[in-house]
Amino acid sequence: MKKFLAFTLVCSALIAADTQKPLTIAEQGSFFVGGETKHIAPPPNALANSPAAAPSDITVNQMYVQYQKPVDAQRHVPVVMVHGCCLSSKTWETTPDGRMGWNEYFLRKGRSVYLADQVSRARSGFDATIINEVKAGVTPASKLPNVLMASHQVAWTVFRFGPEFNKPFADEQFPVQAADELYKQMIPDFNAVLPNPNPTWKNMAALAVQLHGAVLMGHSESGFFPEESALIDPSGVRGVISIEMACRTDMTKPQLATMAKIPTLVMFGDHLGDIQAEGPFKNIWTNNFDTCQKFVDQVKGAGGDAELMYLPKMGIKGNSHMLMQDKNNLQLADLILTWIDQHVEKKKAAK
Amino acid sequence: MKKFLAFTLVCSALIAADTQKPLTIAEQGSFFVGGETKHIAPPPNALANSPAAAPSDITVNQMYVQYQKPVDAQRHVPVVMVHGCCLSSKTWETTPDGRMGWNEYFLRKGRSVYLADQVSRARSGFDATIINEVKAGVTPASKLPNVLMASHQVAWTVFRFGPEFNKPFADEQFPVQAADELYKQMIPDFNAVLPNPNPTWKNMAALAVQLHGAVLMGHSESGFFPEESALIDPSGVRGVISIEMACRTDMTKPQLATMAKIPTLVMFGDHLGDIQAEGPFKNIWTNNFDTCQKFVDQVKGAGGDAELMYLPKMGIKGNSHMLMQDKNNLQLADLILTWIDQHVEKKKAAK
Repeated sequence: MKKFLAFTLVCSALIAADTQKPLTIAEQGSFFVGGETKHIAPPPNALANSPAAAPSDITVNQMYVQYQKPVDAQRHVPVVMVHGCCLSSKTWETTPDGRMGWNEYFLRKGRSVYLADQVSRARSGFDATIINEVKAGVTPASKLPNVLMASHQVAWTVFRFGPEFNKPFADEQFPVQAADELYKQMIPDFNAVLPNPNPTWKNMAALAVQLHGAVLMGHSESGFFPEESALIDPSGVRGVISIEMACRTDMTKPQLATMAKIPTLVMFGDHLGDIQAEGPFKNIWTNNFDTCQKFVDQVKGAGGDAELMYLPKMGIKGNSHMLMQDKNNLQLADLILTWIDQHVEKKKAAK
Repeated sequence: MKKFLAFTLVCSALIAADTQKPLTIAEQGSFFVGGETKHIAPPPNALANSPAAAPSDITVNQMYVQYQKPVDAQRHVPVVMVHGCCLSSKTWETTPDGRMGWNEYFLRKGRSVYLADQVSRARSGFDATIINEVKAGVTPASKLPNVLMASHQVAWTVFRFGPEFNKPFADEQFPVQAADELYKQMIPDFNAVLPNPNPTWKNMAALAVQLHGAVLMGHSESGFFPEESALIDPSGVRGVISIEMACRTDMTKPQLATMAKIPTLVMFGDHLGDIQAEGPFKNIWTNNFDTCQKFVDQVKGAGGDAELMYLPKMGIKGNSHMLMQDKNNLQLADLILTWIDQHVEKKKAAK
């Protein structure tokens, strides 16, 4: 036990040293992927102060991407990170209690990192004309989207900070003293205005092509987006990483054959069955876990390389749904980096 | 003329060299300023799939801030940049045609740079419950916000790319071949849901205090936000930079006395009277310019240090409304950096 503690302390010290040096980056910036032009006619009682009052064209469903490349970026496959419901790319940045996020840690580990805001959220675009049409009385109110807003109460329990609101699990890894800072990350989620299929899927696939290959990583609402992107166009997708969501178990044989060519990692934290949640959230995590276990088995059955990392089974206890922000977030990042090295990059090198 | 051309070429080469080296930064990250907790009751016919269906608390009106600090950051006053209508902090990043934005250029010139998404836009929060209430039939549709969406047609003319849609001015500085990329930066603007006064104002003032002093810079819709922030709390505001907007001309004597203690820079581009715009945009730029000329004179009259840089009068022709993205954007950045050195930092040093 003493040896283990000493080892942990040395590891922590090494990580600290590694993450506190000035950061040298070869290139950074931002751009958009996708987007369509929509022609809009003005509503009958044109809105006086609205630039949309004249018949005109707007751009909708474009995906904003922010990136940083390390020196010698070509040594590793780029990683694309996409956030979950009611959140933005802030998910991957500075944690609620002020520690380094996965975006910078992956960068310091030599990876080009691309943060994409989901279409309809944050710096990405969407078509909001329905709201002005309802206001103008030309469309019924029932056509408005359900805007999702995650409450403090839902976040605490559904994100598994503890069994009930403001009561943490004894071994909780989320920095619960900074929960208010997590609540600030939550912004209105307009995904309900999007066409079907969600444009983020094809935009992620297009981004992977544009990068000449990338690992796609999603979380929660976007957890299965990497797989959906690969089904649209697998040509740029070098690996998929799905964190804490439901998996599809209804893929056809040709779809599973596509997935079997792409290394697949699914990750879940702890306390999946330990929260008191009702309505749509009742048993959500045990159910989600079961679908992913089945999906991983299906991909393996099709000859693929798929792995489900269930952290407590690996001896890593107390992780919440926001494991990229948990106190052991860099330890979990190392698991993912090692998986990429061994399952995505070694294969690439072998080819 | 030949000498001038040679000089320009040497300058361009120097800027190119300066901006293509790897970038070393001491620290980067993101955080929120402000925000309030709102208790929401569920609408009568609770929305089945909405996490907001139960009575609960949400966080609203928090401002997202993304920052990068150079090595030796303490040598200069930090700069806070806030974007305009229907845009996000993307405004200050990579230009539509792929050149360096002001965020990175200021950083390379030794400034800590803070990009703030306006409250209700991008990664910042707001209260969208009104939309679900109207959908549920408990609030009339007339209470919905006017959602502003800037069309291609409005952007081209009102941002002064040319006199009419798709026709550029002969000396246009905006990279019009990349106008489609500018259109992708445009996202729905929900400022109409905000309380009055706009929470971004007090959040910017609080950010300046938190940074132990900062220069606040706004553009277009947010162009006068730096001054409004200073009127709420001037204690952290070391300078205000207002780009291309209307100025208030109704400040009281005590308000002008506050502004007179803060170095003030206003900047306008070219072709202010040369666009064919109707409705709310008729004569918008000549009118806005006149209000700012008056405001600058009022601050000077109160003993302040205020300057209006009208670029064509300084021999710099063809600049659009998006001058941080224009082809000469780094030349304009140098004007601002020099102004900060001489009007904000020399004064600070003298104290």
